[in-house]
Amino acid sequence: MASGLSSPDLYPMSGGDGPNSYFQNSVRQKSIVEATKEMINEAIRDKLALNSPSNAFNIADFGCSVGPNTFIAVQNIIEAVELKYHGNHQNHQSLEFQVFFNDHTNNDFNTLFKNLHHNRSCKFFAAGVPGTFHGRLFPKSSLHFGHSSFALQWLSETLTEVLDTKSPAWNKGSIHCTGFHTEVAEAYSSQFKNDMETFLNARAQELVKGGLLVIIMPALQDGVLLSQSSIGMTYDLLGSCLQNMAKSGIISEEKVEAFNLRIYISPAKDLEALLQRNGFFSVEKIDRITSNMNITTLTAQFLTSQLRAITEELIKGHFGSEIVDAVFELFNIKLSENWFSIIDTKNQKFMDLFIILRRNFSD
Amino acid sequence: MASGLSSPDLYPMSGGDGPNSYFQNSVRQKSIVEATKEMINEAIRDKLALNSPSNAFNIADFGCSVGPNTFIAVQNIIEAVELKYHGNHQNHQSLEFQVFFNDHTNNDFNTLFKNLHHNRSCKFFAAGVPGTFHGRLFPKSSLHFGHSSFALQWLSETLTEVLDTKSPAWNKGSIHCTGFHTEVAEAYSSQFKNDMETFLNARAQELVKGGLLVIIMPALQDGVLLSQSSIGMTYDLLGSCLQNMAKSGIISEEKVEAFNLRIYISPAKDLEALLQRNGFFSVEKIDRITSNMNITTLTAQFLTSQLRAITEELIKGHFGSEIVDAVFELFNIKLSENWFSIIDTKNQKFMDLFIILRRNFSD
Repeated sequence: MASGLSSPDLYPMSGGDGPNSYFQNSVRQKSIVEATKEMINEAIRDKLALNSPSNAFNIADFGCSVGPNTFIAVQNIIEAVELKYHGNHQNHQSLEFQVFFNDHTNNDFNTLFKNLHHNRSCKFFAAGVPGTFHGRLFPKSSLHFGHSSFALQWLSETLTEVLDTKSPAWNKGSIHCTGFHTEVAEAYSSQFKNDMETFLNARAQELVKGGLLVIIMPALQDGVLLSQSSIGMTYDLLGSCLQNMAKSGIISEEKVEAFNLRIYISPAKDLEALLQRNGFFSVEKIDRITSNMNITTLTAQFLTSQLRAITEELIKGHFGSEIVDAVFELFNIKLSENWFSIIDTKNQKFMDLFIILRRNFSD
Repeated sequence: MASGLSSPDLYPMSGGDGPNSYFQNSVRQKSIVEATKEMINEAIRDKLALNSPSNAFNIADFGCSVGPNTFIAVQNIIEAVELKYHGNHQNHQSLEFQVFFNDHTNNDFNTLFKNLHHNRSCKFFAAGVPGTFHGRLFPKSSLHFGHSSFALQWLSETLTEVLDTKSPAWNKGSIHCTGFHTEVAEAYSSQFKNDMETFLNARAQELVKGGLLVIIMPALQDGVLLSQSSIGMTYDLLGSCLQNMAKSGIISEEKVEAFNLRIYISPAKDLEALLQRNGFFSVEKIDRITSNMNITTLTAQFLTSQLRAITEELIKGHFGSEIVDAVFELFNIKLSENWFSIIDTKNQKFMDLFIILRRNFSD
């Protein structure tokens, strides 16, 4: 739902709970989290294999943002664990839950905690954990269940080579990894692999043997480049808005050239290969998520608000806050003009994956 | 260092790190925390009695505020634990620390986490825990060491009877528990006992057998009323400022009558009796702390800033933010006028106590 970015000045999600906040504009992510309730339940029922369950069951959500989706996910997990241990009265009665909400240090934890206070429909002990999830955050073998939703597509670092005009990986004329430029795609892909490895290796230390790690993240269909998918098209559109504004002299062309989204949507098969290669976890499941979100209710304004909640802070930090309204007004117009080519479900060509990893019993 | 208040709108400490923040104005508390370094070391060396130390040593600071004092305290604790287990190479090498920073939900955790990021001079895994410490915050037997510094003198609730003009405990003409009015003192004392019990009973569940709970808090010398001590005199002075402003028509008299500080400085012997009565802990030590703070460097402006950092939010919440500057300007003038009677060390008549409790091995 957010990211484990290492640079505090490049935090993507908008904090607080105002009209442009992530809190108010994470409906797509919410529909996905809700759609995974039964998948979470099955994962815990069939795959969770704790050797010696203690009195406390510890859950961590990596990249939690400020809610409410993290609360829904956590509640689904707790209900499933309670259901699993329901038969064993002794365990069930004494089982207590501790939930760790992780995001990087600049996440708006004050808002998270206030939302938590108002949204706590099931009982657990809560803690916020600040810091990048591309490193250790918890003591060894202290977690039973890890969860991360829409966070791992954010890269941990700005790729200097894609901004370097002298590099073969210079990403001229684009603000993201379109897929058309091989060297750029390789730079993004390489950073993504590195980030996934640091994430998985840290979690391998923190999870108990037999514990589960559930990851929800977008991926591309085989053979599709990002700019051929609807999500990539919206990034292209955002880039063209910035270029238009540079041509009008509102922002500088150099600034636009120096702006790159640190998002990488991996091809599904690359992601699977990467997960299989990691020696600490067994890949128990990789499923496509079918959301129950009604696509006919989508409007350009709605999608604009969604993209704004995710990218506003990045644009503010790079270009200044005074241009943000203009960027998204222009984006909304362009999106309306290109609506049918972008929203066409046949052309979506990306999917949201539900991944279950289980911590191996051997080291 | 702060409080476990249940009403989020009555949070005493000023957040952020501006000139009037608690972060910049907790020098007295800092000198106390530094003065207790050796006492913490001795407590851990001589009193900590863990049955089966696990790989993780879990520490919680209750009422942590935003730093920096909580970081100094935590570092002292970690260094002492490392020293204790230094002889045992196997334990020492594998021992990891997890530190939980607790304060109520409206504490400025964003500032706490930013300060933590900049102040982390020793390695531990950090988490913020929002919520009142007058209830459970952690799973059973999940903590090895609890710490609370300058937090437990804050009561958990506003005392309705001291504000009720028809109650025998109506605290007419004062903003705190001066000690001169028996019914008022009993109302404060009764709430304090209740708060201490809920605090200790919750910690008794959370701490492992043999684990330690260190409490630092002010107490009155035997036979002294709060208004006979220098700390009580500053509260009286603050009350007289508010009454002057009411007489000048700047604020209403009703508002002043409805304002009471939820601070209770217990007589030392009452506090000791209360701790001895609790069946979950053994009282290992109650010592007076000798601070190395140089009292000759104190100025009226310095003490005004200290009091402002602690009470500003309460005054803002009750009277509105527009009067805060005027209140403390007047306070500063009055404090300068009464300087020698208040600052006279012979008349201080209160002390800061260092208390070590050990969780009993029996339930």
